[in-house]
Order: sequence, then C-alpha cells, then structure tokens
Amino acid sequence: MPSPVMATIIPLEQPPRRRKTAALDTLAALVADDMAAVNQLIIQRMESRVAMIPQLAGHLIAAGGKRMRPVLTLAAARLCGYQGQRHIKLASCVEFIHTATLLHDDVVDDSTMRRGSPSANALFGNEASVLVGDFLFSRAFEMMVEDGSIDVLRILSHASAVIAEGEVLQLTTQGDSTTSEQAYLEVVRAKTAELFAAACRIGAVVAGRPSSEEEALRTFGLNLGIAFQIVDDILDYTADQENLGKTVGDDFREGKVTLPVILAIHRGSEAERAFWKRTLDDSEQRDGDLAHAQDLLRRHNTLRDALERAQHYACIARDALGLFGEHPVKQALLDIVNFTVEREF
Amino acid sequence: MPSPVMATIIPLEQPPRRRKTAALDTLAALVADDMAAVNQLIIQRMESRVAMIPQLAGHLIAAGGKRMRPVLTLAAARLCGYQGQRHIKLASCVEFIHTATLLHDDVVDDSTMRRGSPSANALFGNEASVLVGDFLFSRAFEMMVEDGSIDVLRILSHASAVIAEGEVLQLTTQGDSTTSEQAYLEVVRAKTAELFAAACRIGAVVAGRPSSEEEALRTFGLNLGIAFQIVDDILDYTADQENLGKTVGDDFREGKVTLPVILAIHRGSEAERAFWKRTLDDSEQRDGDLAHAQDLLRRHNTLRDALERAQHYACIARDALGLFGEHPVKQALLDIVNFTVEREF
Repeated sequence: MPSPVMATIIPLEQPPRRRKTAALDTLAALVADDMAAVNQLIIQRMESRVAMIPQLAGHLIAAGGKRMRPVLTLAAARLCGYQGQRHIKLASCVEFIHTATLLHDDVVDDSTMRRGSPSANALFGNEASVLVGDFLFSRAFEMMVEDGSIDVLRILSHASAVIAEGEVLQLTTQGDSTTSEQAYLEVVRAKTAELFAAACRIGAVVAGRPSSEEEALRTFGLNLGIAFQIVDDILDYTADQENLGKTVGDDFREGKVTLPVILAIHRGSEAERAFWKRTLDDSEQRDGDLAHAQDLLRRHNTLRDALERAQHYACIARDALGLFGEHPVKQALLDIVNFTVEREF
Repeated sequence: MPSPVMATIIPLEQPPRRRKTAALDTLAALVADDMAAVNQLIIQRMESRVAMIPQLAGHLIAAGGKRMRPVLTLAAARLCGYQGQRHIKLASCVEFIHTATLLHDDVVDDSTMRRGSPSANALFGNEASVLVGDFLFSRAFEMMVEDGSIDVLRILSHASAVIAEGEVLQLTTQGDSTTSEQAYLEVVRAKTAELFAAACRIGAVVAGRPSSEEEALRTFGLNLGIAFQIVDDILDYTADQENLGKTVGDDFREGKVTLPVILAIHRGSEAERAFWKRTLDDSEQRDGDLAHAQDLLRRHNTLRDALERAQHYACIARDALGLFGEHPVKQALLDIVNFTVEREF
C-alpha cells in the first residue's frame, strides 16, 4: 500500500469547475517550474512519523485552491530578477502558514465544506485540525530558520500575529450588525491582506532589492488582498454554488457582518435593520431569510458598491507596480488584479 | 475603567492550595527579580488593540501554575553565568508557547477546568481559545526575531513542531487500550519533555556556553520533563482534588491511555482488559468505573511502578548537571527534580 504521502496528488491544473482563470493560468505558467518545486517541497515537509499529519494536511493541500499566495512569492522574486532557489522554500512556508490558518478557520467557523470538498475538520475532527494546523505553522518557522533570513522571519512572524489578531477581531464583530465599515476593513486587512503583502514582499527581500521595491510589492499585495477579500464576501451572496466551491450564504448563516451587509444596514429602513439584527445578531434564521437578505443587498445596490470599493484597492495595487519596468511577470500580476475583481468564484 | 491589561494580576506568590513547594520556592527566589521582569514583559507583550486577546491570555496566565518552564530558562542562564537581559525575553517566549499549547489542549480535550479555575475555552469559547493561542504563538516568534538568535529560533521552532506532532500522536493513541509503553513515552517526550529541554537549553545558548553545557541542560530538561509528565499522569488517578487544581479522573473520562493504565492492562486478566476496552476504547463509562479503575491500578501496583519509572528519568536529569560546579542554582535545580517526583499536585 502506498504511504499516505505518496497517495497525495497535488494538482497543478485547476479543476474543471474553475472558469475565467486565464489570468491565473498565465501567471502560473510563468512560474510553473518553481511551483512544481514548491509542490514537491510541500509534500516532503508535511511528512511526519505521525501518519495523520500528512493525511490531513494532504487532504487540504490536494483539494487545490488558487495557491495565490505562494505564486505571488514566486512571481515577486522573479519580477525582482532573483535567480536562486530560496524563494521555493519561502513560498512553501507561506502556503503552510495559509493552510494552518484555513484549518483553524474551519474549526472556528465549524465549516463542513472547503473548496468544494468536505473540510478537514468534518473528516478528521476539530481536534486534529487544531493540532495539524499548529504543526504546519511550526514547520513553516522551522523552514524559515533553515533559510536563515532574519528579515523574512520578522515579516512572517509579524504577519502571523496580525492574522491571529484579525481573526479574533472578526470573532468579536460576528453577530454585531452595528459593525462599522472601518472595523470591517481592519479585519480584512489583518486576516487576509497581511499575508498577501508578506508573500509579495519576501520576493523582494530574497532578491536583495532596495526597500522601495520591497515597499512597492508590499503595497501591491496588501491592496490586492483587500480587494480579494471584499470580492470573496460579495461572492458569498452571489456566486454560482458549483463554481464557488463552498456553500452560498455561509457568511449569512454564521452571522458575519461583511461589507455588502454593512452598506445595506446603513441604507436600510428600521424594519430592515430589525431583520439584520434578528438574523445576524440573534441568529434567528427562518426559511426565506437568505433570499430576503440577497434581495435587500440588490435593492440597495450594495453588491455593486462593494465591488466599487474593491476596485479602489485594485487600482492602488496596480499603481504600486509602476516602478517596475516591462516584464512578463509584471503584466501577469496586473492581470491577476483584474481577475480578482472580475472573478465569479 | 482600567484597561483589561491593567486589570490582569499575575501572582508571583503561589496560591495557598499549593503545598510542599519549598523546592519551587527556593528556585523562584533565586530568580525572583528576573521572573518579575518576565511577568511584566508577558503583560506588555500580550497587549493588543483587540481587547479579547489580553483578557483571555491574562485569564490563563493570571491563573498561575508553576511557571516551571520560564523559571528553567532563567535558572539555566544564571547557572551558565549569563549576566545580560536577553534571557528575560526568551523565558517569556517559552511561557507564551506553553500558554498557546495549553489553550489548544483545552479545546482538543474540551476541558472545563484548568489550574483550579474554569478553563479559557469554557469562559471565552473554543473559537477564541484557538485564535488567541495562534496569536501568542506568533507573538513568541516575533519576540525571538527581536532577540535575533537564529540558534534560539531553531531550537524553539523545532520544539513547537515536535510538540504539535506529539499532540496528534496522543490523539491517535487516545481510546486505544493496546497503546504500548513505548508509544506512550514517545507522546510524553514530544508533547511535554521537548519544551522543558528547549527551555533549559536556551539558557546555555544565550550565555554562549560550549555545546557540552547546552547538551547537559537539554538532557536535564528532557528527562525532568518526562518524569514530570509521568507523575502528572499518576496524579490524575491519585491526587487530592483540591490540590490538583483539576478534576481527578479526567484522563480516564477522556480515554487517555497513560502509563499506570498501560501497566495495569499488561498485568491484568482478560476480564480486566475487557473493562479497560469498554471504558477507554468504547467510552462506555458507568458510575463506579473510575473507582474500579483506581482499584485495579492499586491492585497491580502500577502507580508505584510508574513512579519508579519516573524516578529513572529523574536520576538521568540529576546526573546531567554533574558537569556544572557548585552553585546555588544547581542545588535548586536538583531540588526541583526531587519535587517533581515527590509532589502531590
């Protein structure tokens, strides 16, 4: 019988349910060899004498996903003219940190689906998800130590602390329909954008580029990440279930107060606010409530306006790349920004 | 109103329920000034704009406990003649890592009590415990990066990965009454002893001592940690509830297959093995089962013999200090070994 690790297949091709992925495909093609090396290293470094670790980690990693974060590290390093191999290990660290946060997220949200498959906690239990997340997180730091750059360690340890802080902040805004747009943005910046920013920034660090380029890539990643999360929150109300790879309406059912909802609350009547309070704050949800919520978002144009907010951050991300000269990777990164705000999943 | 952080009181004195703490008190007195600085730094560095983080972390840290791990780092540094201040920050990192694992442990075990108080997950919810654990863990790495020693980062990132691996391994042995003594020892070494070893070892690293002393302190910590955990597992069946600060019989109720039980299973009749299988593997527990389990442990002398096993590791720990000359801290560390195998809580 093959070992659990050998049985883990990490698909480089996106599964067929993905559409409109031309931008992702172009960037992925530019760093395809590097990404193959990352995938190999990921399999190798999630190995453990405790069989459940590669089984559980492999389940999540094999499920695919866009792998945007490690691709960003690889692309940023290439854009900065980096010729070595260190970016492979660091991109793997970024994916391990991301995977660890996904495992813990699913426990916190008590999710049953992730990327169109049963979530790890649904299959292996919350206990294992917590602990394997801890393992992947620790393993990421071990690998950074092997790399030896104290700058990279500083960037990623700080990002990890900010992510955890953002997740706790999100927990305190959950079920609170008085959450402000500013508080929402702070959660998004911390829980999502900070790792995008760090993933891009370490591409410049590993290439030994001046701090202006490091800062440009950080700005690119941060704003791309904010745009990405806002669109994610829009899609939770609008996506085609099959494309999304998770259940539409999850955020609503969990009482998450996201941008489309915040705008609808601000623009709504007293009766509408009572509806949001009942469904989100008091978790009293009945048949038809999700459809009514979707209707309110449409009626107040908050999905369209949330997307405009996302476009704002996308513009900042695009401009941040201005100081880099012409480069196929630069064009592909700009396309990724467009993809992020145009995607349907 | 004072901020949540200011309201957090971290007692330096042990609470009155502790007895037989002379050995701990002597060591604590030798590093009292350092430990006061550690406590101050802990309060300072668990600060966050997200109020729930210092509230939850403060709850656990204020609850006390023996603080053995940071004390070991401070003591090891002093034993190695270290005169600087870096050990303060590193001892705080060790306590943050330990606190993070406790928070995640309580979620995994679904505990309701910790150190005689309601556990953090019982008060704040599992979600918050997972995320604040992640925060403390990340914060520990940020602080190590500030310290700047790649050796310390290597030791503690490796220890963290081993701890997580050990916790997953424990999960797979739980409810499996065929667990071998060897598998039990591997769990104990990974989940408990590795951090004791790392805590002691970095005292030598920070002092820039030769690798022989680093290795001696690692050996001391590792074997002290194994002895400590074996005794912990004995006390779960024998302790005076009030002194223990947790519920007697927790391990039994959770189906944990610890050393006293493993020995009783090996020495027991078929009928007794059926009893252990029903209660631990199948989680079918009835009134009187805990008392019967305790009776079986006594009848087969497995509590006494488990303590003898612990004594074996205690001896190795004591001998490891042999290469250090006379020093009040050395004597206090030897006393701690004695305390560990003689304690009633």
